[in-house]
Amino acid sequence: TGSHSAEADSQTEWTDVQKKIIPWKNSTPSLDLEMAFQDRAAKLGKSNSRLIVVASLIDKPTNLGGLCRTSEIFGASALVVGSLHYIQDKQFQHLSVSAEQWLPLVEVKPSQLVDYLQQKKTEGYTIIGVEQTAKSFDLTEYCFPEKSLLLLGNEHEGIPANLIHHLDVCVEIPQQGIIRSLNVHVSGALLIWEYTRQQVIKQKQQ
Amino acid sequence: TGSHSAEADSQTEWTDVQKKIIPWKNSTPSLDLEMAFQDRAAKLGKSNSRLIVVASLIDKPTNLGGLCRTSEIFGASALVVGSLHYIQDKQFQHLSVSAEQWLPLVEVKPSQLVDYLQQKKTEGYTIIGVEQTAKSFDLTEYCFPEKSLLLLGNEHEGIPANLIHHLDVCVEIPQQGIIRSLNVHVSGALLIWEYTRQQVIKQKQQ
Repeated sequence: TGSHSAEADSQTEWTDVQKKIIPWKNSTPSLDLEMAFQDRAAKLGKSNSRLIVVASLIDKPTNLGGLCRTSEIFGASALVVGSLHYIQDKQFQHLSVSAEQWLPLVEVKPSQLVDYLQQKKTEGYTIIGVEQTAKSFDLTEYCFPEKSLLLLGNEHEGIPANLIHHLDVCVEIPQQGIIRSLNVHVSGALLIWEYTRQQVIKQKQQ
Repeated sequence: TGSHSAEADSQTEWTDVQKKIIPWKNSTPSLDLEMAFQDRAAKLGKSNSRLIVVASLIDKPTNLGGLCRTSEIFGASALVVGSLHYIQDKQFQHLSVSAEQWLPLVEVKPSQLVDYLQQKKTEGYTIIGVEQTAKSFDLTEYCFPEKSLLLLGNEHEGIPANLIHHLDVCVEIPQQGIIRSLNVHVSGALLIWEYTRQQVIKQKQQ
């Protein structure tokens, strides 16, 4: 029947998604998969961004699904989530509009974040926390390095103190409203956009 | 009882919200209310932005609630919605986190939009459609006038052809993903941010 066929399609898609998940611990297969992804992205005409969006501290499937869509559209190289189970959540899927099929997803649990950030530092990434602190750069003044890793905070608690020490820099969005802060998906989107905007301008200047 | 008292508080808040709604048709009371709002905003330390966000074509309460929060945080001068009934929607309220209490809301039905846009043109606003067209400016290249009105499109149909003719300019966000387009709240947030960023830089140069 038609509905059976649709279900089969859906299962095939899910298998595809599973294949696209990159383990970060085992470096050799990971690199192979990353190469395969970059190859595929190039064939699809996507540019090869060096932006990693880390959303492991985020709890709400709606925010994760939204970030998945936005990250894919701006060509981020990967979205890091605290658990791959979120992909099966209906709210995630509703907001991601299937972007998880076109964007590498990496699972890094909150307890693994320190190790993960350290590894990315050794790979040349600048670790950027999206957080309001006494030493934060204003987003209107911050110049993103080509290899940027954005760490987004939890919806309620932001970035915990033990992780702040492992950041290279904090960037904050200047806000003037009475309402305390932007939604984390929107905050992430603005930094992803600002990174993208700066890269576009640099490419034009070359 | 405690719960009765909470309910009374909630009703008082709702009455406050109702008072903050500005009718746009009757210019004299509208101007009085706008002055009162600007006065209040100044007292609260908010800067006096000349950015109007028009969301009358948007259907989903989640997108409207999100835009309400984001518009308030960046100090937009008003958010225009197709119906004030959205404010009572629980999804709207969940996403707006009470920003509607701090941001002027104006009701302009889709059928009234042509008249409304014409009136704002006579008040010196540049009417900017957020839409991909053959003549759209790239957001990385567009310079926002101080008096900017952003018209956001419908989730599915964008900005209808009959309204495109009434715009001064279209601006599009360069997107490179496989997924077709950004969520309308995110698109709006990026243009609101870009307007804000440019104003901040102008003020520093003065």
